[in-house]
Amino acid sequence: MFEDVLRSLASGEITIQEAEEKILSKFFERTNELMLDMERDKRQGFPEIVFALGKTKEQTIAAVEKFLERKGIAFVSGLDEEKKRELKDRFFGYVIKEAGRLVVLKRENTTLEKLNGKVGVITAGTSDVPFAEETSLILEELGVNVQKVYDAGVAGIHRSFYALSKTEDSDLLIVFAGMEGILPSLIASLTDLPVIAVPTPVGYGFGGEGLGALSTMLQTCVPGLVVVNIGNTVGAAAAAVRILRRIRKDG
Amino acid sequence: MFEDVLRSLASGEITIQEAEEKILSKFFERTNELMLDMERDKRQGFPEIVFALGKTKEQTIAAVEKFLERKGIAFVSGLDEEKKRELKDRFFGYVIKEAGRLVVLKRENTTLEKLNGKVGVITAGTSDVPFAEETSLILEELGVNVQKVYDAGVAGIHRSFYALSKTEDSDLLIVFAGMEGILPSLIASLTDLPVIAVPTPVGYGFGGEGLGALSTMLQTCVPGLVVVNIGNTVGAAAAAVRILRRIRKDG
Amino acid sequence: MFEDVLRSLASGEITIQEAEEKILSKFFERTNELMLDMERDKRQGFPEIVFALGKTKEQTIAAVEKFLERKGIAFVSGLDEEKKRELKDRFFGYVIKEAGRLVVLKRENTTLEKLNGKVGVITAGTSDVPFAEETSLILEELGVNVQKVYDAGVAGIHRSFYALSKTEDSDLLIVFAGMEGILPSLIASLTDLPVIAVPTPVGYGFGGEGLGALSTMLQTCVPGLVVVNIGNTVGAAAAAVRILRRIRKDG
Amino acid sequence: MFEDVLRSLASGEITIQEAEEKILSKFFERTNELMLDMERDKRQGFPEIVFALGKTKEQTIAAVEKFLERKGIAFVSGLDEEKKRELKDRFFGYVIKEAGRLVVLKRENTTLEKLNGKVGVITAGTSDVPFAEETSLILEELGVNVQKVYDAGVAGIHRSFYALSKTEDSDLLIVFAGMEGILPSLIASLTDLPVIAVPTPVGYGFGGEGLGALSTMLQTCVPGLVVVNIGNTVGAAAAAVRILRRIRKDG
Amino acid sequence: MFEDVLRSLASGEITIQEAEEKILSKFFERTNELMLDMERDKRQGFPEIVFALGKTKEQTIAAVEKFLERKGIAFVSGLDEEKKRELKDRFFGYVIKEAGRLVVLKRENTTLEKLNGKVGVITAGTSDVPFAEETSLILEELGVNVQKVYDAGVAGIHRSFYALSKTEDSDLLIVFAGMEGILPSLIASLTDLPVIAVPTPVGYGFGGEGLGALSTMLQTCVPGLVVVNIGNTVGAAAAAVRILRRIRKDG
Amino acid sequence: MFEDVLRSLASGEITIQEAEEKILSKFFERTNELMLDMERDKRQGFPEIVFALGKTKEQTIAAVEKFLERKGIAFVSGLDEEKKRELKDRFFGYVIKEAGRLVVLKRENTTLEKLNGKVGVITAGTSDVPFAEETSLILEELGVNVQKVYDAGVAGIHRSFYALSKTEDSDLLIVFAGMEGILPSLIASLTDLPVIAVPTPVGYGFGGEGLGALSTMLQTCVPGLVVVNIGNTVGAAAAAVRILRRIRKDG
Amino acid sequence: MFEDVLRSLASGEITIQEAEEKILSKFFERTNELMLDMERDKRQGFPEIVFALGKTKEQTIAAVEKFLERKGIAFVSGLDEEKKRELKDRFFGYVIKEAGRLVVLKRENTTLEKLNGKVGVITAGTSDVPFAEETSLILEELGVNVQKVYDAGVAGIHRSFYALSKTEDSDLLIVFAGMEGILPSLIASLTDLPVIAVPTPVGYGFGGEGLGALSTMLQTCVPGLVVVNIGNTVGAAAAAVRILRRIRKDG
Amino acid sequence: MFEDVLRSLASGEITIQEAEEKILSKFFERTNELMLDMERDKRQGFPEIVFALGKTKEQTIAAVEKFLERKGIAFVSGLDEEKKRELKDRFFGYVIKEAGRLVVLKRENTTLEKLNGKVGVITAGTSDVPFAEETSLILEELGVNVQKVYDAGVAGIHRSFYALSKTEDSDLLIVFAGMEGILPSLIASLTDLPVIAVPTPVGYGFGGEGLGALSTMLQTCVPGLVVVNIGNTVGAAAAAVRILRRIRKDG
Repeated sequence: MFEDVLRSLASGEITIQEAEEKILSKFFERTNELMLDMERDKRQGFPEIVFALGKTKEQTIAAVEKFLERKGIAFVSGLDEEKKRELKDRFFGYVIKEAGRLVVLKRENTTLEKLNGKVGVITAGTSDVPFAEETSLILEELGVNVQKVYDAGVAGIHRSFYALSKTEDSDLLIVFAGMEGILPSLIASLTDLPVIAVPTPVGYGFGGEGLGALSTMLQTCVPGLVVVNIGNTVGAAAAAVRILRRIRKDG
Repeated sequence: MFEDVLRSLASGEITIQEAEEKILSKFFERTNELMLDMERDKRQGFPEIVFALGKTKEQTIAAVEKFLERKGIAFVSGLDEEKKRELKDRFFGYVIKEAGRLVVLKRENTTLEKLNGKVGVITAGTSDVPFAEETSLILEELGVNVQKVYDAGVAGIHRSFYALSKTEDSDLLIVFAGMEGILPSLIASLTDLPVIAVPTPVGYGFGGEGLGALSTMLQTCVPGLVVVNIGNTVGAAAAAVRILRRIRKDG
Repeated sequence: MFEDVLRSLASGEITIQEAEEKILSKFFERTNELMLDMERDKRQGFPEIVFALGKTKEQTIAAVEKFLERKGIAFVSGLDEEKKRELKDRFFGYVIKEAGRLVVLKRENTTLEKLNGKVGVITAGTSDVPFAEETSLILEELGVNVQKVYDAGVAGIHRSFYALSKTEDSDLLIVFAGMEGILPSLIASLTDLPVIAVPTPVGYGFGGEGLGALSTMLQTCVPGLVVVNIGNTVGAAAAAVRILRRIRKDG
Repeated sequence: MFEDVLRSLASGEITIQEAEEKILSKFFERTNELMLDMERDKRQGFPEIVFALGKTKEQTIAAVEKFLERKGIAFVSGLDEEKKRELKDRFFGYVIKEAGRLVVLKRENTTLEKLNGKVGVITAGTSDVPFAEETSLILEELGVNVQKVYDAGVAGIHRSFYALSKTEDSDLLIVFAGMEGILPSLIASLTDLPVIAVPTPVGYGFGGEGLGALSTMLQTCVPGLVVVNIGNTVGAAAAAVRILRRIRKDG
Repeated sequence: MFEDVLRSLASGEITIQEAEEKILSKFFERTNELMLDMERDKRQGFPEIVFALGKTKEQTIAAVEKFLERKGIAFVSGLDEEKKRELKDRFFGYVIKEAGRLVVLKRENTTLEKLNGKVGVITAGTSDVPFAEETSLILEELGVNVQKVYDAGVAGIHRSFYALSKTEDSDLLIVFAGMEGILPSLIASLTDLPVIAVPTPVGYGFGGEGLGALSTMLQTCVPGLVVVNIGNTVGAAAAAVRILRRIRKDG
Repeated sequence: MFEDVLRSLASGEITIQEAEEKILSKFFERTNELMLDMERDKRQGFPEIVFALGKTKEQTIAAVEKFLERKGIAFVSGLDEEKKRELKDRFFGYVIKEAGRLVVLKRENTTLEKLNGKVGVITAGTSDVPFAEETSLILEELGVNVQKVYDAGVAGIHRSFYALSKTEDSDLLIVFAGMEGILPSLIASLTDLPVIAVPTPVGYGFGGEGLGALSTMLQTCVPGLVVVNIGNTVGAAAAAVRILRRIRKDG
Repeated sequence: MFEDVLRSLASGEITIQEAEEKILSKFFERTNELMLDMERDKRQGFPEIVFALGKTKEQTIAAVEKFLERKGIAFVSGLDEEKKRELKDRFFGYVIKEAGRLVVLKRENTTLEKLNGKVGVITAGTSDVPFAEETSLILEELGVNVQKVYDAGVAGIHRSFYALSKTEDSDLLIVFAGMEGILPSLIASLTDLPVIAVPTPVGYGFGGEGLGALSTMLQTCVPGLVVVNIGNTVGAAAAAVRILRRIRKDG
Repeated sequence: MFEDVLRSLASGEITIQEAEEKILSKFFERTNELMLDMERDKRQGFPEIVFALGKTKEQTIAAVEKFLERKGIAFVSGLDEEKKRELKDRFFGYVIKEAGRLVVLKRENTTLEKLNGKVGVITAGTSDVPFAEETSLILEELGVNVQKVYDAGVAGIHRSFYALSKTEDSDLLIVFAGMEGILPSLIASLTDLPVIAVPTPVGYGFGGEGLGALSTMLQTCVPGLVVVNIGNTVGAAAAAVRILRRIRKDG
């Protein structure tokens, strides 16, 4: 990982101590409370996304500033309405897009390197839409072609078939469902595409808050369905990107 | 419920104390450890079924004897292999039928009053079959016409449609599923028949032992699915009987 | 299901592509975020009910509009006070009824096809009443004769007997209980009618939020009790309708 | 508690160190792995009962020996069949009584001081009987008059009323139930006696292993029901003794 | 229970139908949503306490009115601050006492029949005080002598010994604890009095909301501790009353 | 999906009824208790794997026979030692391979169509090896090149780095871990490859049986990790195959 | 513990009763609802910290007053914003420091006896910072040298190595993490220092609210990691102090 | 960590590739299924202990062989009786010690570097003894002076005080408790020593299998108690060693 530094060390250009410092300074920016992971996109193939939940307004803004300065773009997830407003006020003049509890801020004309690929994004119900929109926005910012079909739950099974027919030329599918969480299994049983299941915190009573959906997705009889945590829209996008990158590399 | 006794009391035929005793003696047989509910079939429309789990061999046999003597027939559920053998040895010469962990014993030529009706019994997997067989055996002993379709799970959705097509002329459906427990919801979304969902204790990991199936069935987006406890095959049969009785009464 | 279309296809009236489109267009209305299931009542014998929980104001209103336009009536469940007010404002002039978190809106003079039948609706406590009212309102809109007895919990067992005596000429009973959830079992032990148990999210401490009631109902020793999820008032109504339809068909 | 020792200390009869030793030696016997609480009966009004679960054969026998030597009687709970056999072999010649997983061993002619009082012991099912027998045996050894009524569950409610009528002249009731655990609440709603509820580990599926019964008993709508842990038969006996002692003291 | 009515029936004074009506009308007052249990105090030895949680303002006031009219006193539990204010406004002029979320309202000069007895009420922490105060207020209204010692938790064990020394002449002890819930076990290990343990919903993290305290109390090694649900202050009072009544009856 | 049949119908070659039958017969083989999904590999890109858990010996053998006859190869998972022996006896003469609880049986010279691709299979501990071996055997039978590194857990972090260095030229990684389940997150943080996490049922105490590992994997801070159920080795293999198929298609 | 008093008793200086009173009065201050543990610092080596959660404003202020009067310093934890403000208003003029939900109040020039030692405080994320700050503030008030490194989570593993390098000359480490809670295990695997893991209530979905982090820390494969409850910042500080005191004593 | 290697690299003695290999080869021995962590004792101050649970006989023996060869001593935990026998047979002639499910094997005359220090090991009950013995054996092998007091549970509180008096001159205490798990808190409230709490899987019903004990220990009101997982005897020993090492270093 640090091959170049080691080489410099080996060639005597730098001291051992300098080597260590170089490695560290190369990788992160520090404030008192934040160590941002500026090169995460290089390492994991996915940009670091600021997770605002539990952060103060000041911490969130500081993180966004650092990213805008270094990368020209910042992704922030887990925002409530108040924090969203504060970001918009503070970064007035930037290009700002939002979906669900996610916001993307960028300097005019900043674009990320385009990632070719097509992803089908399907939801079981209307309440799952904000979650699907978060995942879609991230993917679209990375240049992915997203095909959305919403409210395709199994209570009206013709809607599910319709959803599949509209997305079956994708590279992979991401299927969102709360309540009993059946849809991802049904879709996966009808296709050989990779299918990522995202349980949403929709539901009540026994198995509510997405736990019923999660257990349905984990217990699935359909081999090959993979799952992320309840409401983990960022994780779903990142998993898609990992797969797309591998497809493109090979293609 | 005790109208005749009250009438006798009112007419002075019996004393208050005699009235009380009459009511009690009419309803149950007592041994030291058992108070059997001989007239449960009159009251709830369904015979008392001896639940052998946790009972000793002696308690189980004593209960069966009482029922055979009074009713000519005894149902015993929750039997392990050893207790089954003991029952068969002890009641050699009786007509004995078994399914899963359930046994029915009867005196030659004993038949219960026939209950007209047709019930579709569907399972998602092969592992659910012993559970479905228990419910079916009870229903068949009561004279119900049972149409069975097994291994119709949603991993191959054409099998599910096939199952429905074979049972859609029933009065009601009973659908068994373990693992993620999707099948009852799918079936219920395609029919207007009453559908009773029975989670089976099949599965592993998170949501294993039938809990995933149970939460799927309770969280269902399809209105009108009703549920019994994990593995409660007797309850499913009894619910079916309650509905069939009401249908026939009205017909 | 699509027999007529297949026939048209077989007779050469339409192309394969047209057939597919016809089937799809016949079944649902689409907006960007909603695929409403307009013919669910035909298929499942129960109208689609808009589940407002997690939907935005705009999504909810759009759904109601579609239903009013096509069916003249819309059911909306899971409404908080604010969304209720918005619906009433927006659909001023329509006939509006409400119970608990449920609202029914209809054009003057719209009535659904009457479903004959009588249902007993019983609650254990006063806190269960809003739930029972939701189920009752749906059933009454469908033309069912509902007999209500409230606050009949087992802490004063004479009240429970009274409740049964007032409802035992029904086609089926729906019994609501929170806390320890005993009442449905007690009622079911005394009648041969179908009994649907609805746990309500009333209770606190261990087994609170309805979980204690749910486990009581699932673990019941009384055979034939069936259960829906905690607070699933729509499911209980739909299950009742499935049974009533079957009774009437046969009658 | 140590008033006499303090007095001796104050009067100069003993040194501070002697005082400390006296206090300690007075209270317990020590082996390497056991510190038996010989005077627990004086302090808590209930004899120490050896809890054999998790103890080795040697540990169990050592404890019994100490108690027999000092008190002439030993109670051992939580025994499996093998350990029971070992105890009987080892203590051949002693008076031995057993119930469920409990054994009482005593030297001929040993009797504990008689505790006057009458306790009604009721079970919901036959599977609860071994648990009730454990509690009863302890109470009877302490001289309490125990009135037992078994298999009185609410599935046949007349049996429950019968049970109460047979025990309502007791000082208090102990009611055992597994499955949905309704019976203690029903009994408590009909009497003003103290009622101790004991959930038993009988049941399956959701709320199985006694958890459903426990939550029913804790969530009860009937004020004044008190609960011990699932299968805690010793605790129920001890609670009864605490109450009886207080009643007698006052009487 | 209905001996007098049965006697009238037997003597021909009344018809069977009249008997039934008499029994029912004697026992309860009905409004549309409430069936109050006016004679519960006779049957269970404890007044019915209106549980306001989940009831509307109107339902709560209606219940209070009925009780004030018939009994001159009303107990209401589970009140939030807003409902408390409404009650005080509506019943201005009545004697009103409150503790925690409980309110007692009575007509001037109404007193319940005095129940002799002394109860020690102990809390582990200061946060448990409002719960202890609820139980105490009920007991004091019933005439019981309550000795309170608060903040006696085991983190400073001398406080616990002090608490016991102040209450050991009581008829029974009620001990409140949240967090790890140790105190009731410690107290019970040092006394032979009946001890009722009340877990309070104080705590956080794993075992928070009182679940840790509950499991500590149920798992206790000290025989004879009995438990009510988390925060069930009314149940603790009622259990105390059941025991006190039995003590006094005998005395 | 049924385009050819619809075409035949449109062209009048077959009747509507024949069309339906053709579709059904084409897809599955039926015995009384099994409906095998012979063409699942076509639809989902992965062969149906017989899940032996809960199946009787006879059911398992019948399933294997059908697959051997039609496909020349059968995969059976969830086998205990006894069932494994029975299969080996019954199918003596066939090529048999096994790993963990999985067995593959095939007719001499049967090979599946080769799926190009390279998968890194990593375990945290030695106890996870049997699970990893199951997944590897399936993949190898499908022609995938599997690179295994075992016992690379984070307690010795150099082992983890070593594991990654040996597998980073794969198309994707599958990482197995029980206990606290850290390894998949660590690996995923250091690579941009797709990473599938498989929790194994290794561990004890709180979070034992794999639940701790599962929650670690779902809660991961590293974006893009996807998860299957505890011990779901077949699901992991199938997910890998879905991704590999998509990569190859594109390549 | 009470050696001096016993000596006085032995020497006849005081009566038995006086001895008892002396012991009690020495140890605590009483108000009606509080028994403060003034000498806890002597006994446990750590000052009593007022836990404000669940206490009223009046109770909190009363406790603070007592401590300020007797010790010149008061620690209060579990404060919400409103209570913080009230404390600052009421104790205007005192030295006040705050961190997270903790406040320290002291009279000018009050300092506690200095505890030598160096503690490394590390957090995985920014959201964990307020928790780490609480622990740090307590330690710093006690004179401990605290070295903080924040946002060092494993998603960017170089940050974790950096954190260790900055703190490895400490006496012990305290590591805070929410979400999947990996960091403490990683740190502990690389050092032989004592490591205290503090799960924070950061996270969502399955294993949210800190439960996933807790189970990771308990299930750790790295021997020697010790854990406190979710968010128990006071407990972590106190554990550190216990260890530091022992180190210093020995040094 | 790799300073010497880096130096060699810097000085040109070795190539970059050699450096990497050196680092890796230095740290571990590899077989196909095992990567043993030979230098863990250097890094974490505690020897690697083979965790036999889930390992095959062959895997376990292979691990032991490697350790005996390299270190002259091997620790194996999580052994059942059968595996213990196999180890003893296979390594006949070696010095073998065992406690609970732990075995230590060493070549004659092998001794580890002595770690000075004194640890008090206390158990609440007799059933906790095997767990305490495991921890003690590890510590004693490392040269630690262990003072044991067993069966000191709080049901007889004088036993607890006795236990503390016997161990209060230790460097730290390790306290084992199952059931309600009170003892560690009580001990910690009376001493300023570091206290490590080990919940044992002793208990039944709600909070059984050690969960009740765990939650008691985590919820403790006594600041400074630290906890390891249920039954984690190795973790407790390792935590003690980390603390002792730090104390000695400083001393």
